Amino acid sequence: MSSLPSFADVQAAARRLEGITIKTPLLENDRVNARLGGRLFIKAECLQRTGSFKLRGAYNFLASMSDVDRQKGVVGWSSGNHAQGLAEAARLMGIKATIVMPADAPALKVANTRASGAEVVLYDRVKDSREKIGLGIAQQTGATVVPPYDHPWILTGQGTAGLELAEQAKALGVTLDAVAAPCSGGGLATGVALGVHGVSPSTTVHAGEPAGFDDMTHSLAAGAKRRNEKLSGSICDALLAPEPGDVTFPLAQKVLGPGVVVSDEEVLDAMEVAFREYKIVVEPGGAVALAAALTGKLPVKDRNVAVVCSGGNVDHATFVRALSRYKS
Amino acid sequence: MSSLPSFADVQAAARRLEGITIKTPLLENDRVNARLGGRLFIKAECLQRTGSFKLRGAYNFLASMSDVDRQKGVVGWSSGNHAQGLAEAARLMGIKATIVMPADAPALKVANTRASGAEVVLYDRVKDSREKIGLGIAQQTGATVVPPYDHPWILTGQGTAGLELAEQAKALGVTLDAVAAPCSGGGLATGVALGVHGVSPSTTVHAGEPAGFDDMTHSLAAGAKRRNEKLSGSICDALLAPEPGDVTFPLAQKVLGPGVVVSDEEVLDAMEVAFREYKIVVEPGGAVALAAALTGKLPVKDRNVAVVCSGGNVDHATFVRALSRYKS
Repeated sequence: MSSLPSFADVQAAARRLEGITIKTPLLENDRVNARLGGRLFIKAECLQRTGSFKLRGAYNFLASMSDVDRQKGVVGWSSGNHAQGLAEAARLMGIKATIVMPADAPALKVANTRASGAEVVLYDRVKDSREKIGLGIAQQTGATVVPPYDHPWILTGQGTAGLELAEQAKALGVTLDAVAAPCSGGGLATGVALGVHGVSPSTTVHAGEPAGFDDMTHSLAAGAKRRNEKLSGSICDALLAPEPGDVTFPLAQKVLGPGVVVSDEEVLDAMEVAFREYKIVVEPGGAVALAAALTGKLPVKDRNVAVVCSGGNVDHATFVRALSRYKS
Repeated sequence: MSSLPSFADVQAAARRLEGITIKTPLLENDRVNARLGGRLFIKAECLQRTGSFKLRGAYNFLASMSDVDRQKGVVGWSSGNHAQGLAEAARLMGIKATIVMPADAPALKVANTRASGAEVVLYDRVKDSREKIGLGIAQQTGATVVPPYDHPWILTGQGTAGLELAEQAKALGVTLDAVAAPCSGGGLATGVALGVHGVSPSTTVHAGEPAGFDDMTHSLAAGAKRRNEKLSGSICDALLAPEPGDVTFPLAQKVLGPGVVVSDEEVLDAMEVAFREYKIVVEPGGAVALAAALTGKLPVKDRNVAVVCSGGNVDHATFVRALSRYKS
């Protein structure tokens, strides 16, 4: 693909993923709707195989590779969910996978990546370059680098979540005013926008980001890529990419509305609401778009809004911390 | 209905529930399957509107009433989930509802029942008779008593969860060897059996119960109704009915296999697995069938097994207690 990825590419990805990914439900809660004065839908991608949407992009990438390349294996780097998605996609297709993960990634994510049969190489998030380590492995072994977000095959795979949610809303007779999805490098947000717009062109799609790691929001406002000042320090461990991608940003400028930014405290509150009202387990990075809707930063009043809750791979201690914010 | 409820009654209920209840997903986890050596499917009814399967039976009951009776309102008694399901069904149909609830029911369940617009009357689980209080209200107001389980309209409504799960398994090309559902008075378990057998006659259906409150298991083994010795004392607050119902038991003898019984500790462990692997919030009573599968009491090895996780209305403290059982 030399031009920008299109809705047709998302549809092709959806055909590749048939029987592999599950059609996650679109959840709604009568009490939350009454409180917000509109209809809020949650696309519960935390219920996806591997506990996040990442299997979609990874499997679509591997299914698009040549047979010759597949035999040499794949290598990837990830704060966790891409690692699990890639490792499981590789297992499903019988491909050898090596995953470069930060040493401070949640223990569950590391263990689960190993459980899928992948080789895990740990690195120091501050001192080392995960790109350098991953590229070194690729050079030595001939393995193909599977990037976490900045590739058409990845983002159109993630976009199948947007296609599904738009079709699910349509089946309910609902025209969505807005959709928001968590954003790190922009693969999910841009892919979801492609998928949603193919079914519902009038829907505005927003990237949700944690405060201080809102590079996409700043970049869209500035009309050029902007970098985060910090590399770590948010509870949203899945959303720490330093800047939008070279593939995702030009697409984001075309398909995304303004970004929405939330604090770590708002994210924890959203996780608690997801537990209490929707009965789903959402990790911090997976809850930023929901937090934007619950706080009114993404208005729901008199509107139909859908948010992607993109993952549920959260450590027990962090989840207990979120639950402790509930005042009965 | 003078004869036993049938699969056709479940199909009729499913038509009444279209657009009201959501088709909850059938979840599967690759790691758990690998550990158990078979395929385990979870019918995630905790994701149902009102946080449990109870809306199915309650709405089916109200939709089957005469217009004249609906105008006089409804009254019900419940440890919580039937209360929420009945209150919400009544709200959706514009019917006045009065709910008799135990004073020691989880605070969330009481609050949520009130949030649906129902009038809540609290009683003492040890000293008072909820039946007497509820029947008194019915006599005074002409309201119709909506029982929690012991009525054909209720159990065939609950059975739509079984019909759905059997159809979802069939769509995956899977023939289910066994299905288990949590059991209090037997409405869900017998209804699910009707629904499952209509699609998959060879599947064995089991009632899951907490130890000490395993009246259905004992009754099936004895061939006659047996009563629990205790009225309270299990973490499974939703499963404390003292004995099988007069409608459900004759049906249970026809459609259920032997019961499966689990301890409170096994239930807490199952809730933790539901959190960690399936990313769903399951309440104690909702997790008994899952606990039976995870402990091997309901064998999964070399089989295809589905369990209903019937509700997710759990207090924060109980959920934290379940999470604390995880040893990393």
